[in-house]
Amino acid sequence: MRSPVQRYLEHIVEQCGDAGGEVASYIPELADADPDQFALALATVDGHVYTVGDPEARYSIQSISKPFTYALALQDRGIAAVDESIDVEPSGDAFNEISLASDTGRPRNPMINAGAITAASLVEGETAPERFERVLDWYGQFAGRELEIDESVYRSELVTAHRNRAIAHMLREFEVLTGDPEDTLDQYVRQCSVSIDTRDLALMAATLANGGVQPRTGARVLEPRNVERVLSVMATCGMYDSAGDWISAVGMPAKSGVSGGIIAVLPGQVGLAVFSPRLDAHGNSTRGVTVCERMSEDMEMHLMHVGRASSTTVRATYPVSRVSSRRRLREADQAVLDEHGTRSIVYELHGDLLFSGAEHVVRAVVEDAPELAIFDLRRVDDVAQVARVTLQGLRSMLREDGGEVVVVDPDGVLPDPDAGTDAASPVFEDLDAAVRWSEDEVLRRHGVEPPSEQVLVDEHPLLRDLSAGAREVIDAQMETLEFAADEVVLEAGGAFAGVHLIVSGRAKATVEGPDGEPIRLVTMDPGTSFGELALGTDDVQETCIRAVTDLAVLRLSAASIDAITADHPEVALEMWRAMTRDGYRVADRALRAGTTLG
Amino acid sequence: MRSPVQRYLEHIVEQCGDAGGEVASYIPELADADPDQFALALATVDGHVYTVGDPEARYSIQSISKPFTYALALQDRGIAAVDESIDVEPSGDAFNEISLASDTGRPRNPMINAGAITAASLVEGETAPERFERVLDWYGQFAGRELEIDESVYRSELVTAHRNRAIAHMLREFEVLTGDPEDTLDQYVRQCSVSIDTRDLALMAATLANGGVQPRTGARVLEPRNVERVLSVMATCGMYDSAGDWISAVGMPAKSGVSGGIIAVLPGQVGLAVFSPRLDAHGNSTRGVTVCERMSEDMEMHLMHVGRASSTTVRATYPVSRVSSRRRLREADQAVLDEHGTRSIVYELHGDLLFSGAEHVVRAVVEDAPELAIFDLRRVDDVAQVARVTLQGLRSMLREDGGEVVVVDPDGVLPDPDAGTDAASPVFEDLDAAVRWSEDEVLRRHGVEPPSEQVLVDEHPLLRDLSAGAREVIDAQMETLEFAADEVVLEAGGAFAGVHLIVSGRAKATVEGPDGEPIRLVTMDPGTSFGELALGTDDVQETCIRAVTDLAVLRLSAASIDAITADHPEVALEMWRAMTRDGYRVADRALRAGTTLG
Repeated sequence: MRSPVQRYLEHIVEQCGDAGGEVASYIPELADADPDQFALALATVDGHVYTVGDPEARYSIQSISKPFTYALALQDRGIAAVDESIDVEPSGDAFNEISLASDTGRPRNPMINAGAITAASLVEGETAPERFERVLDWYGQFAGRELEIDESVYRSELVTAHRNRAIAHMLREFEVLTGDPEDTLDQYVRQCSVSIDTRDLALMAATLANGGVQPRTGARVLEPRNVERVLSVMATCGMYDSAGDWISAVGMPAKSGVSGGIIAVLPGQVGLAVFSPRLDAHGNSTRGVTVCERMSEDMEMHLMHVGRASSTTVRATYPVSRVSSRRRLREADQAVLDEHGTRSIVYELHGDLLFSGAEHVVRAVVEDAPELAIFDLRRVDDVAQVARVTLQGLRSMLREDGGEVVVVDPDGVLPDPDAGTDAASPVFEDLDAAVRWSEDEVLRRHGVEPPSEQVLVDEHPLLRDLSAGAREVIDAQMETLEFAADEVVLEAGGAFAGVHLIVSGRAKATVEGPDGEPIRLVTMDPGTSFGELALGTDDVQETCIRAVTDLAVLRLSAASIDAITADHPEVALEMWRAMTRDGYRVADRALRAGTTLG
Repeated sequence: MRSPVQRYLEHIVEQCGDAGGEVASYIPELADADPDQFALALATVDGHVYTVGDPEARYSIQSISKPFTYALALQDRGIAAVDESIDVEPSGDAFNEISLASDTGRPRNPMINAGAITAASLVEGETAPERFERVLDWYGQFAGRELEIDESVYRSELVTAHRNRAIAHMLREFEVLTGDPEDTLDQYVRQCSVSIDTRDLALMAATLANGGVQPRTGARVLEPRNVERVLSVMATCGMYDSAGDWISAVGMPAKSGVSGGIIAVLPGQVGLAVFSPRLDAHGNSTRGVTVCERMSEDMEMHLMHVGRASSTTVRATYPVSRVSSRRRLREADQAVLDEHGTRSIVYELHGDLLFSGAEHVVRAVVEDAPELAIFDLRRVDDVAQVARVTLQGLRSMLREDGGEVVVVDPDGVLPDPDAGTDAASPVFEDLDAAVRWSEDEVLRRHGVEPPSEQVLVDEHPLLRDLSAGAREVIDAQMETLEFAADEVVLEAGGAFAGVHLIVSGRAKATVEGPDGEPIRLVTMDPGTSFGELALGTDDVQETCIRAVTDLAVLRLSAASIDAITADHPEVALEMWRAMTRDGYRVADRALRAGTTLG
């Protein structure tokens, strides 16, 4: 099936039709370009590339090299050092202006030639050829493949580079350049001659869209702070003297080149590249500009387009007394939990925690002023520094009032700066474990010793309501089994083996994920049971149960259940009734957990 | 408890310390300002306002009025018409430059005085006073309260407005203004004299951050397209001749005023306002700039800061055969579903569907090429136009291959353009109803008549495995009850009343939400049962069950269950065993649904 996204892109391209303008003619390699060539490539931040036209037609990168060399200079020298040599103000000038800012004596910005030549000189390396090797490798990291230069373009450019030669010597005269201007010019001309295709450019743009991580290789190429800087400069200076029009009409940081390419970046979403050699009066690809404008408008790909993701960061909140762990507690303990557990609150978070998401969470917690704030981070993707700091501040404040933060964070998205010390927060791999800990903590905080393992076993729904006589019959049928850590207790796919009650130690239930890897569903402590769910699935054990620590269980085997049913009908009645209640108890709890999603 | 966000804001403000610069002195009202005054206000897109300093100190809005008047001109005339009079290019000039763009003959942008005066003239209204009344009301819509002008500022400004008078007459000379320039000047001076406080400014900024909807009143003030335009212009032209520095260092569209205010907007997240009267050489509040830079850096409030919300739009996918509805089907039917139901897939979506989110969904569906694509939209907040179009394209393509889209959309976030016609997709209010429909559809598509109501009742887990003798005893105890649409069948909080099997019609289960409103958990069709979950919750019926249509149920009452248990122990054994299996079946299904979240 062809993707409707693909069709939609083709539709937009068709609607943009032919375009006026002339191909660049100052060197034969550009003058000879087929003016009707066209390619579009759109790369998502997870590395999928849609293409229209001929995405593998090669051409020289030209000025689209500028933001990437600037990025390397930033990475090599730091923002402050680069700012000493190049300003970041939109110039309102043409790209090839031979002038420096009158107030600072520096090139206006790194997207005009004077600034780009200066940026090239700031790349680390002893000699211009060494610097160029690093530049070439660097572009390749963005594109995700090794690149090379088009020697013929390079030679033609070099002999006609009068204007850039003038700029380089002017830069040397004003000591913006410190080395031999001819070497830097050569390096700059080489960088403009690097041969790329539209697919490469889309992936280079998508690396910027993805915060500096190449979407296909997964390698971090550029630090986030430098990504922000590069995109900011592209936003205000990328399209030469039409920067204001561009950011209003298209709303994406962009850069164009004289060979007919344009890249545009929608941060967090996509990298876009368009190629069409005919140029407008500004030196931008005529059709490229039209396609970008059309895509921004039709696809709402505008930097200022407001999503509302921030409104949904707290997906659900509920007191632990509402979910309760899989254990059954004594009535007195349960009463304490019912009374005081309402002040221990689970916050299910999701998505990215940037400032506004963290602010939302903090506001909710401050309003609730809970005793225990249990953050369920299983659906959180990324936590910005500001969110970390704010959540730490929140923890300090809760602790001042005697509260605590409890974290469910199997993927470690929110590392604890106090990890390994007494000041660390309790961290759990699943919500049930966090709720068990929190239940015990609430009991302790309210003067009640948490139930012992024996009490938890006695309180299990399958046992607690039995008459003394029935309990005696069932106890007689129970076997104690012991397992070493990591040993499999029940295989997935096996037949119903009976009800297993954990007496000591811990077990986990897993299922096989789509790639065959085990996915942990839940960990289980003393007082919880497993194996009985198979009664609801045609007697097939659907999960794998494995000991996490040394484990002791009481087992009422399937054969014992049959024997009791045959030999002691009055006990069997009590037993099945208890199991019915347990079944619906588990069902009710699971359904409740599900409804918090709504 | 004081919010850590509040503390953090105070901390940042403290760290920024004192600032140099001088208060504006061209009129006494500004010259007399206390140079040490300070206020910060941060308003979230849901209308919460954090403040530091004195957020209610009043001052004149001055140039911060410019983006809002420009917004009104855009709303009144349309973008194209306004563009005929005012460009959107950064000028690199000071705010009070007396010149027009040499190429277009228009003011460079609406943030310099020439452009702002022109924008004021473009507001609809017969006379300048009428236009000003509309402007004043308009600002009030952003601030969320009625505003007035500071007459004393107005009078002082008017007598010293030589430069603006020169600009107004120049604009008239070049026919950018068409009316009396003195009238327009008067209107413009009035708009600069509107009295606001820092809290007002933060809410005005937050209205822009919120896509044009005032966060507290909920009123849509500005159309989204115009919001994008205003923010684009603020991004490139808002901070006079330091626009490039600003967007690099702060990364938020912003506007400053000579009285010492600055607003900054982080789209989708927050509106920020800072007030401190000492100005730097550009005419921007010195301390205001420092605070904005610091907040952007410390709080990662930068337009180019990349979140990854787009990566989590498809929260889970699973075939309907995995969830299955609450009904129990015949084994033969179930076998057909097990075989063919894998090609009917539920896509749980969440968050906002902008382009990249929709692309993600489309890609997943195209890869799966399902027979039925069931979109669960219960956790989707906002669907951009591009997402609508793309999802419609997806539906067309699925239909070409004989597929169909099924939608769970209780809140109507994705209206069907074909609603009410045969071409509409089936829409359901809960997932279970969509899964039931899809199960029937899969059966039909594979040559099997979906089960009749009687078959569904007979296949219910509580009945299907009973021996003939037991079934006879239980049938004799069953009563048929009938309810009219909307009638309550079981009250929440009542005692266990027995097992209820739906024979015909439809019922729904609801719980009370936090505000007392009923929250629908699930709708139920023939073949499903209710009431038995109370066995798991100490015999308390936790949900309210209400007939949706006329409803007929078979009830095995609590008394009948007791009677059978007492009088027919062998039947009771079968009955309790069947209920045990049903309990664990429901538990297993609910737990599985829960694990798709992971």
